[in-house]
Amino acid sequence: MALNPAEAPLRKLMGPGPMDIHPRVYRALTSPVIGHMDPAYFKILDQVGEGLRKVFQTQNRVTHATPGTGTSGMEACVANLMEPGDQVLACVHGYFGDRIRQMAERQEAEVTVIEGEWGKPTEPEKVAEAFKANAYKVITVVHAETSTGVLQPMDDIVSLAKEHGVMILLDTVTSLGGVELKADEWGLDAAYSCSQKCIGCPPGLAPVTFSDRAVEAARNRKHPIRSWYLDITLLDQYWGSTRVYHHTSSSTLNYALLEALLLIEEEGLQNRFERHLRNHQALVAGVEAMGLEMLVKPEHRLPTLNTIRVPEGVDEAKVRGYLLETFNLEIGAGLGALAGQVWRIGLMGYSSSVENVLFFLSAISRALAIQDYKTDLSAGSEAAMSLLNA
Amino acid sequence: MALNPAEAPLRKLMGPGPMDIHPRVYRALTSPVIGHMDPAYFKILDQVGEGLRKVFQTQNRVTHATPGTGTSGMEACVANLMEPGDQVLACVHGYFGDRIRQMAERQEAEVTVIEGEWGKPTEPEKVAEAFKANAYKVITVVHAETSTGVLQPMDDIVSLAKEHGVMILLDTVTSLGGVELKADEWGLDAAYSCSQKCIGCPPGLAPVTFSDRAVEAARNRKHPIRSWYLDITLLDQYWGSTRVYHHTSSSTLNYALLEALLLIEEEGLQNRFERHLRNHQALVAGVEAMGLEMLVKPEHRLPTLNTIRVPEGVDEAKVRGYLLETFNLEIGAGLGALAGQVWRIGLMGYSSSVENVLFFLSAISRALAIQDYKTDLSAGSEAAMSLLNA
Repeated sequence: MALNPAEAPLRKLMGPGPMDIHPRVYRALTSPVIGHMDPAYFKILDQVGEGLRKVFQTQNRVTHATPGTGTSGMEACVANLMEPGDQVLACVHGYFGDRIRQMAERQEAEVTVIEGEWGKPTEPEKVAEAFKANAYKVITVVHAETSTGVLQPMDDIVSLAKEHGVMILLDTVTSLGGVELKADEWGLDAAYSCSQKCIGCPPGLAPVTFSDRAVEAARNRKHPIRSWYLDITLLDQYWGSTRVYHHTSSSTLNYALLEALLLIEEEGLQNRFERHLRNHQALVAGVEAMGLEMLVKPEHRLPTLNTIRVPEGVDEAKVRGYLLETFNLEIGAGLGALAGQVWRIGLMGYSSSVENVLFFLSAISRALAIQDYKTDLSAGSEAAMSLLNA
Repeated sequence: MALNPAEAPLRKLMGPGPMDIHPRVYRALTSPVIGHMDPAYFKILDQVGEGLRKVFQTQNRVTHATPGTGTSGMEACVANLMEPGDQVLACVHGYFGDRIRQMAERQEAEVTVIEGEWGKPTEPEKVAEAFKANAYKVITVVHAETSTGVLQPMDDIVSLAKEHGVMILLDTVTSLGGVELKADEWGLDAAYSCSQKCIGCPPGLAPVTFSDRAVEAARNRKHPIRSWYLDITLLDQYWGSTRVYHHTSSSTLNYALLEALLLIEEEGLQNRFERHLRNHQALVAGVEAMGLEMLVKPEHRLPTLNTIRVPEGVDEAKVRGYLLETFNLEIGAGLGALAGQVWRIGLMGYSSSVENVLFFLSAISRALAIQDYKTDLSAGSEAAMSLLNA
């Protein structure tokens, strides 16, 4: 009656996450389960914190992984930083920016939204205007919008927030570990990510970092933090030196996360960013040489998640179904406002590889041919190869 | 630079959880990571729901595992069932009953507490009095108080709640899969547990079940559910037939949970309860024959978690340290009001075994001897053996 391996198929994961993981991370998953209050486990947790500080590029003491998926990290940041009546400026240009807005409203913050076009970043001019018009406590920004494949330029927003003394809450779900991200240099007050994308671990944990100022603000709220599970002042007591029991930390997932962080350290953060960028550029070159079109302009493209427009007349769901059935290949559908209009191709962590780029080009070319949509695979492959120095 | 196996020691886990897991569950952890929207994965999630319905003994459609540790299940039940101003009766006779109270207060429910003695269950007479004095929406009860080792008799409370039309929110963290639990027969409206105790999976997931009445109430609240992450109406859309994306479900943990549930089905629920009871009785017989004392009276003892009083003059932390260092054996310390006064010995899931009972008696006898506290191990072992038919 055991789990039938045939029911757990071996996919090639090239959607918006989760991603394929390194064999060493699989091995780490089978480390013996250990107690959450074991002195040996505290050393593991400390190493996880240390590794995450390196990828967040921060000295923040409160840097760890909340016990849930990426969305638990989002909720931790929102629920701790916002309380009823707080003035919040939400930059929304995709599904996840809007999810933050929804969470902020559930905290009864007073939310002003800068609505942006899906597929473009938020314009700093609009942030400047908003900051002039009102005093905000927090601005929420999505660094890497997983629904659109847009990388938000940070410099102007960072300067404006500093100038106006506004706290920055940043979504780094699809950037942490794959794209340059400087939590301290940017003066981030709260940022969250997930374990299963550029970090290269299975889903189930959400890396987070909180500035000292954010932790202090959480300690001095007028209203209690509504989430007990994600209360950063309680989590800090468990993660920090006092080691007060809070929840039964999943050693299984934290061992895997640590192994993934050690792999990042071995590769080197800059080398990793370059690998993600190179494979992204090769994929885009191939896709465009084949006559397909990217959603996002070159200067705002996220190297980790590529959004390709569905050509007119093509049944996009049929393409995804064909790829899954024929090649065990998962790619992502459009989400929210982009449903039916784009495919989302993830090249993150272990999955950002030359073989995945070339495999994808061949597979999509075939999937489109089945629907009588002709692409020039030779041209696509050659364009990709030239950027891969192959 | 890989994770050093020496840093991930192989313990024998006999604390309050996590527990050792079956080799088949370790194997399931290394099932290939799969996408959270993959049709093949939806079949796995459906099987997880089916398996959990069997251990909860319920037909509740909304029966699944929230994406976090047991405390995420507690927060899901509290945050969905309670809104500001709701009248809530909280039965508190231990650390976890009090944690529910704290969560309820963060939801701004009007909480009345029945404070009970730690080590005894809540008296139904007090519930009857409270129900006469006030109209409550929800009563919160801890079926198996992990901090004290008390099993709450349910019959009277169940009748009273039915009579007064009060919803029951039940903590089954240390009972689900190890002790009789009849969600439908008892008319539970919300119950939660964890993956790592009697269920036999690593930590990271929280089995939950919600009655149709509870889901309906969550849909018709006056105030939005404060947690987006644990909003049962959103989770239901992902777990249910509409399959709307909500969070990136951890296939790793859900494969492991499914394998653990299949092991339960193979053993048979009643056989499993009997095994937990037999090993508990043997442990208690051994402990008492050795001259040690249990905290809880026989009629209220939880078969899954045994609280032993620390004998006078014994340094309890030194005993735990010795067991961990010498035998790699983890047992639990007292929590909250019982800190320093008891040890907590878990016999749950795969860890509820004859060998663990006998190993523990030998090890604790030695640990006490080091502190010049003499126990009669021969008598203890013989008493245990006689109940194990050995």
